[in-house]
Amino acid sequence: MSKYPLLLDTKPVSYMIGDGALGMSGKSLQKYPRIIMLVDENVEKHCLPVFKEYLPNVEIDHVISIKSGEKSKNLEQSIHIWNELTRLQVDRDALFINLGGGVVTDIGGFAASTYKRGIPFINFPTTLLGMADAAIGGKTGIDYGAYKNQVGLFVDPVSVIIDPIFLNTLNDLQWQSGFAEVMKYGLIMDRDLWSMLIGKDYHHLDDWNKIIAKAARDKIDIVHHDALEKGMRKNLNFGHTIGHAIESYYLMHDMPITHGQAIAAGMICETWISSKKFNIECTQIDEVVDMIDLNFEKFGISEDTIPELLDLMRQDKKVREGQLKFSLIRKIGKATHDIEVEMDMVIDSIKYYINRNAAH
Amino acid sequence: MSKYPLLLDTKPVSYMIGDGALGMSGKSLQKYPRIIMLVDENVEKHCLPVFKEYLPNVEIDHVISIKSGEKSKNLEQSIHIWNELTRLQVDRDALFINLGGGVVTDIGGFAASTYKRGIPFINFPTTLLGMADAAIGGKTGIDYGAYKNQVGLFVDPVSVIIDPIFLNTLNDLQWQSGFAEVMKYGLIMDRDLWSMLIGKDYHHLDDWNKIIAKAARDKIDIVHHDALEKGMRKNLNFGHTIGHAIESYYLMHDMPITHGQAIAAGMICETWISSKKFNIECTQIDEVVDMIDLNFEKFGISEDTIPELLDLMRQDKKVREGQLKFSLIRKIGKATHDIEVEMDMVIDSIKYYINRNAAH
Repeated sequence: MSKYPLLLDTKPVSYMIGDGALGMSGKSLQKYPRIIMLVDENVEKHCLPVFKEYLPNVEIDHVISIKSGEKSKNLEQSIHIWNELTRLQVDRDALFINLGGGVVTDIGGFAASTYKRGIPFINFPTTLLGMADAAIGGKTGIDYGAYKNQVGLFVDPVSVIIDPIFLNTLNDLQWQSGFAEVMKYGLIMDRDLWSMLIGKDYHHLDDWNKIIAKAARDKIDIVHHDALEKGMRKNLNFGHTIGHAIESYYLMHDMPITHGQAIAAGMICETWISSKKFNIECTQIDEVVDMIDLNFEKFGISEDTIPELLDLMRQDKKVREGQLKFSLIRKIGKATHDIEVEMDMVIDSIKYYINRNAAH
Repeated sequence: MSKYPLLLDTKPVSYMIGDGALGMSGKSLQKYPRIIMLVDENVEKHCLPVFKEYLPNVEIDHVISIKSGEKSKNLEQSIHIWNELTRLQVDRDALFINLGGGVVTDIGGFAASTYKRGIPFINFPTTLLGMADAAIGGKTGIDYGAYKNQVGLFVDPVSVIIDPIFLNTLNDLQWQSGFAEVMKYGLIMDRDLWSMLIGKDYHHLDDWNKIIAKAARDKIDIVHHDALEKGMRKNLNFGHTIGHAIESYYLMHDMPITHGQAIAAGMICETWISSKKFNIECTQIDEVVDMIDLNFEKFGISEDTIPELLDLMRQDKKVREGQLKFSLIRKIGKATHDIEVEMDMVIDSIKYYINRNAAH
């Protein structure tokens, strides 16, 4: 049982994906009498000029800027956005644009859809993570205390405009963070995408237009069939049960890491659990772990942290009636969900992560 | 244009209305592994014992209590609820019960539906206002600064259980506050209901079971046809454009009044505007104003407050592209919406309220 009996506007989300999407979006923006935009300070510097260059006729009434980084995805920043919207006397005819990565689309979607019971918003993801994952699928929210997305809601943007042109603005850490989610799509549902990636580190990949299109379509397919995460959408949580706990742990101890770094570590643990639960060929396990090690450095966490990680997992939204349920892979390209995993096996998987010799 | 592209669970809301509804709701509650309840301090004292008496087999895991009154419908109290849910490690299988009046159902619905992106909730209204209006229709939210419901969302409860037994717990002010909304249903859509009320003050009415059933059904009809307030639901705003401004004004100046008192005053102003916009018989105008005066004392506001009231109206959610649009009555029992009203006429309507001799 899980009910999210939200009210509905029957309009489906419109997507534009690929080179040129940014410029083509102009027409749909011009029908709004007023546009408010949310960015972070990096996006304001690097992406907003690109937005303005490609859409010279779109008039942005006001730009709200927040500090970049996961630490900004909090209630204080959401209050800042509500205050700005109130101060500007924004009404429900206005459009709210989220220009940025996952932090901006998550908090901006939450703030916009709770301001005056909801103003429409459009996501323009600017990061690899945003394009392949975060900007799609209606999950919005803020972190709360140590807990990721503890406050938020499912609410769709009017449109998602994905133009790879913004990838030119990314730093190395942002590339890497998004790459974890791209790998995830290969592992859970897209053998073909995995084949494009395997054996390469993300610095040496090209054809991002195609990679992004494949990952974004995978995500759109899943959320189209299961928007509210009652079934197959749970497959997207592969790597995230342990990964989120690791991310929260570092956030709590004031050593924030990227979402991708946390999920990469989580995928190693959960691939190990998958191998214990299902009969997966050893070569496939090695292939996954080697690929992650090729792209991500191993964290120096110690076994002492395990109890705290377990506590954080128990607060995860994926917990049902106190039982940890995992999304795991049966083989590369095929995931499954709602697999109960004993606490000892979770502990062992983290020990496996800690004690293995990373090739990197 | 107004889009609220929220995601949907297709389940309709279930309603139980009338004597005995409370006891009959037990079965549907027992399927939840864990129940958390929100009350205010008055409800905890007067209604919670009734709830427990009629539902002895329903186990409430934890009761969260907030101070009673509109002043509690704020972000701090919502944070308190999120904190409690987090501390109690409540997961998405749990049920959240709102037992109380409009403040409890508004803030509880908001907090529950944004906690971990939404846990299901059921409303048990305990006030006349809640039963006839606030608990039905999916509007949730909190006040923010001086603005009513500035932060919130449209989200339906799983069920609404309306049992008049709780009316026995109300004080006079609560009866009066709810009565304004009951009258409103008569005025905007239900001549039959109006006939049951006319000429009486609320102390001298009986058959509340029937009155509540009629008002609640009127509301359910409207929100069924127009959940997201794009058309006919706007009729419910009769009396509320000016009424909300009056309510916010008194809240800001630390002299909180009841919602009903504010709406009663707003209905007098907006009946006056209706008479200017449409050709309504004088006897009908007098009938409405006399009936309100019979049940509500006149406020001693002065003309100096008018500019502040106008500022508050401009922040109203009903403002579109800067233009104030009113819901008015064409005659008793028939409302209409989206009527543009010039600022001078709004000012004159407030002057009419101030300068007329109330019979009361």
